[in-house]
Amino acid sequence: MSSGYKSWILLTGFILFYVAYLLLGALVFSTIERPVEDKLKSDIQVLKEEFLNQSCVNATSLENFLEKVLQANKYGISILPNSSASSNWDLASSLFFANTLVTTVGYGHTTPLSDTGKAFSIFYALLGVPFTMLVLTACVQRLMHPVTYGPIDMCRQRIGLDPLAATAVHFAILLLLVVLGFFVVPAVVFSHIEDTWSFLDAIYFCFITLCTIGLGDYVPGEKPGQKFRSLYKISVMVYLFLGLMMMYLVLRAFHRMADLHGLTSFFQLPHCDEDTEEDKEPIIEADPEDQHEAEASAKPLDPASQTSYNTINR
Amino acid sequence: MSSGYKSWILLTGFILFYVAYLLLGALVFSTIERPVEDKLKSDIQVLKEEFLNQSCVNATSLENFLEKVLQANKYGISILPNSSASSNWDLASSLFFANTLVTTVGYGHTTPLSDTGKAFSIFYALLGVPFTMLVLTACVQRLMHPVTYGPIDMCRQRIGLDPLAATAVHFAILLLLVVLGFFVVPAVVFSHIEDTWSFLDAIYFCFITLCTIGLGDYVPGEKPGQKFRSLYKISVMVYLFLGLMMMYLVLRAFHRMADLHGLTSFFQLPHCDEDTEEDKEPIIEADPEDQHEAEASAKPLDPASQTSYNTINR
Repeated sequence: MSSGYKSWILLTGFILFYVAYLLLGALVFSTIERPVEDKLKSDIQVLKEEFLNQSCVNATSLENFLEKVLQANKYGISILPNSSASSNWDLASSLFFANTLVTTVGYGHTTPLSDTGKAFSIFYALLGVPFTMLVLTACVQRLMHPVTYGPIDMCRQRIGLDPLAATAVHFAILLLLVVLGFFVVPAVVFSHIEDTWSFLDAIYFCFITLCTIGLGDYVPGEKPGQKFRSLYKISVMVYLFLGLMMMYLVLRAFHRMADLHGLTSFFQLPHCDEDTEEDKEPIIEADPEDQHEAEASAKPLDPASQTSYNTINR
Repeated sequence: MSSGYKSWILLTGFILFYVAYLLLGALVFSTIERPVEDKLKSDIQVLKEEFLNQSCVNATSLENFLEKVLQANKYGISILPNSSASSNWDLASSLFFANTLVTTVGYGHTTPLSDTGKAFSIFYALLGVPFTMLVLTACVQRLMHPVTYGPIDMCRQRIGLDPLAATAVHFAILLLLVVLGFFVVPAVVFSHIEDTWSFLDAIYFCFITLCTIGLGDYVPGEKPGQKFRSLYKISVMVYLFLGLMMMYLVLRAFHRMADLHGLTSFFQLPHCDEDTEEDKEPIIEADPEDQHEAEASAKPLDPASQTSYNTINR
């Protein structure tokens, strides 16, 4: 079996196992958290009844009531009647939570209520975060040739650009496509689906999400009564995964450009360069004159140089 | 001026500029968000007065009232009297927000209310996230020798361990120290300072924070009336920065160990290895027999191999 073929089988295995890991996490979270949520939900409804049945409402009783309401709200349990139908811990929502946990986005619109849930979150993320990074890195690794090295090589051979210019032009085009495809277009879609989101809100959501900041002030599919909610949540998960992959790809392309322009050398930071046998081929086989020229700059085409999948604890 | 000296000046410059960047961000966020917050705060108090002055409280009026209360709460504005004294956008809180933004932790306990604030968040993170990564990478790069290569080399020369065993022993000790110093000890401290946090809650907070998931269900210094709140917030920021640095260091040490054991080769992923001139010295000068032995495994000590500071969009 050829190495390339084996590599793709490995990647497919990774992705299937990743999906299974997410589903397993979703099942466990749903099993642990659903009963706690149901209990809190009924408690808060009883509290509301009691409050309404009071003969007189004074500031103190209102404040006591509101304190409990806000506490429940912190755990994602709303006292409002239209919110009580949907659960934060049905399978689709649990899957979404598991996904935001392992990608380190962590919106926090839903958080585990029980101690078991918290302990499981730690355990789940401990394995899940590095695993997600592994899958993302494996995907990006295999995309580097068709998306980065291939087109740069083509720029150099067809248009006759020098390596610096070819890398810069390629990076500009890649960036433009990613901004359009993963920020502008999704923002248009989100601002149409979510009634209360303006275009700026949607762009802000895309940016905060794909940077893995995940503030959680905007979370898709959280309005009560949305159609095809489960399907929508899963689509957002796919968007998140593909988006993170593209962000990683853009960063690697940028890092490589920074190497070529001597920036990483200047800051005395590690270099990024093509690393696998397949990856380096197009550059090695390129016009020897160009290659010479490139080598003169901050040893940018050293084929033995490596990139790392290790990230700040992702 | 020697290269090592220049390297430290560069690093100091980075850190000073980073602190200045955070302060600048804090000032801008505070300026933009404070007036919006004050407006919302007074609105919600008026609403409360109106609600209390109603002759009869029925389910509909209560729900309308609660909807507005929960909406304000989503923006970090509490209707409760003891919360109204402290602001989410004073200088210390804004600094904390700016820090959680650029480290991609993003608790989301405070989020920008105005469109200007959202737009500035995008702009600020766009520069700040890569910059934070740059500073963290530069710090870790300079710590790799004293914390990783040095001790491993010592294990090999003094105790006579082979490279695989030395790396494994070193990694186990490093991991233990980091778990103690950045999870267990801080968790003890947090569970003492924050009245409502159990030890599990505090460990959960440390883990969720240092993984940059940042769910935001536990955020230090958010209880009303805490003493030395600003100082406390700044200490948490320092903890966050040092913690992220250590997580990165552990990951690099793990990645290196995975290389030595042929794991990255097996998964066809990029290798991680010592990369700067200074870094590789101790290994290069080590017992040539050991080195030979190491090279026989998955080309683990290739001095030209590189790590990358590029991470999933940090």
